[in-house]
Amino acid sequence: MTIQLYDLAGAEEDRRFSPYCWRVRLALLHKCLPFETIAWRMTDKQAIAKSGSEKVPVLTDGDHMVADSSAIVAYLEQTYPDRPSLFGGPIGEALGRFVVEWCDSVQLPAMFRLLATDIVAHLAPTDVDYFTRTREARVGMKLEEFCANPTLRLSEFQASLTPMRRVLSKQPFVCGDAPAWGDYAFFGGFQWARCISPLKLLAEDDPVNLWRSRMFELFDGAAAKAKGYAA
Amino acid sequence: MTIQLYDLAGAEEDRRFSPYCWRVRLALLHKCLPFETIAWRMTDKQAIAKSGSEKVPVLTDGDHMVADSSAIVAYLEQTYPDRPSLFGGPIGEALGRFVVEWCDSVQLPAMFRLLATDIVAHLAPTDVDYFTRTREARVGMKLEEFCANPTLRLSEFQASLTPMRRVLSKQPFVCGDAPAWGDYAFFGGFQWARCISPLKLLAEDDPVNLWRSRMFELFDGAAAKAKGYAA
Repeated sequence: MTIQLYDLAGAEEDRRFSPYCWRVRLALLHKCLPFETIAWRMTDKQAIAKSGSEKVPVLTDGDHMVADSSAIVAYLEQTYPDRPSLFGGPIGEALGRFVVEWCDSVQLPAMFRLLATDIVAHLAPTDVDYFTRTREARVGMKLEEFCANPTLRLSEFQASLTPMRRVLSKQPFVCGDAPAWGDYAFFGGFQWARCISPLKLLAEDDPVNLWRSRMFELFDGAAAKAKGYAA
Repeated sequence: MTIQLYDLAGAEEDRRFSPYCWRVRLALLHKCLPFETIAWRMTDKQAIAKSGSEKVPVLTDGDHMVADSSAIVAYLEQTYPDRPSLFGGPIGEALGRFVVEWCDSVQLPAMFRLLATDIVAHLAPTDVDYFTRTREARVGMKLEEFCANPTLRLSEFQASLTPMRRVLSKQPFVCGDAPAWGDYAFFGGFQWARCISPLKLLAEDDPVNLWRSRMFELFDGAAAKAKGYAA
């Protein structure tokens, strides 16, 4: 049975903008595993209830149902060891967790401050109230206020990328000569932005931008072809 | 011929406080390579001139002389592939560079703001003017001014550790079940602090503190036994 991925969609069914779902999509492509996606909206908790999670990504593989992007890629690596490795061994897997935690605590929060109102503008009508209410409770203010002063926020975001910028000025991918999980974890955020915002996040000559261009081209341009804005 | 490591020393010859030298010392212990250290002071450029570097760590191994902690561990891994691996393969090595760049651009600058005046207090007399002049030029102010408001700086430092804190709440070492290069890269900064400052950097129950305690005990307590303060 084909692997299925519950994948966050916007008002348009083909606008797939979750950074965590994109991490998994690229991991599935990396492992050469065929899959299909199921468009999912934030308020459709019932569809994924069996997974124990209220959020996507959720992946089904035969009888298995796995939620959370890190748990999903660990499952894929363990279940399909003969396919190209996402981690390159236990130390690569452990350090991949550091990349994920850095992305989740530094990169994505800084991007959310740039993107929150753009997200609202692309949500399915059923999701707008839910998203606005839960996110305003999380950040403690109106999203319009949270996203004020985008010029300052953009420079803060770009400064926060310093460690990755230095790495990517020395090697073509986060994981070295070829992309792997660390690249997909970091790239998810950029694809999130591209799918819902026209904002120019990176200077042309930024090593992070050059890396992002390489990422767009992977797997026959899977990320570049997805519905979104010019990066 | 035994490997030799030029190692930064303070006013007391056995106070060895460079974070970068500590990274290399633990990497040498990890690889079970016998070595001896040579006490070095910042102004003794002549002693290491052959390496092309003006700073330690500098390692000599027979006819080879290698400077820079990242270059040194890459040299050790390549030269002694039969010894325990520091990287666990190419992806682990590539992601180790991200750990190093994060430490060098986030962890160590935040710590320097807490430690700079303590460093001056422990320097060899020959190094005091050199250090003060070069560092004040770098930070653009007097070191006393730079180190003002330590309570605020400590909370900023602790907050900056979030990604590592999350990782270390899930696994005992940065590199997984056992320590490797990513651990030594991150630990160097804490040992730097311990050697020259009585400042309590971490809460007792902080997962980073629990990890640090494990690191002190490695290799027969090599870091814990070094001259310094209680951590």
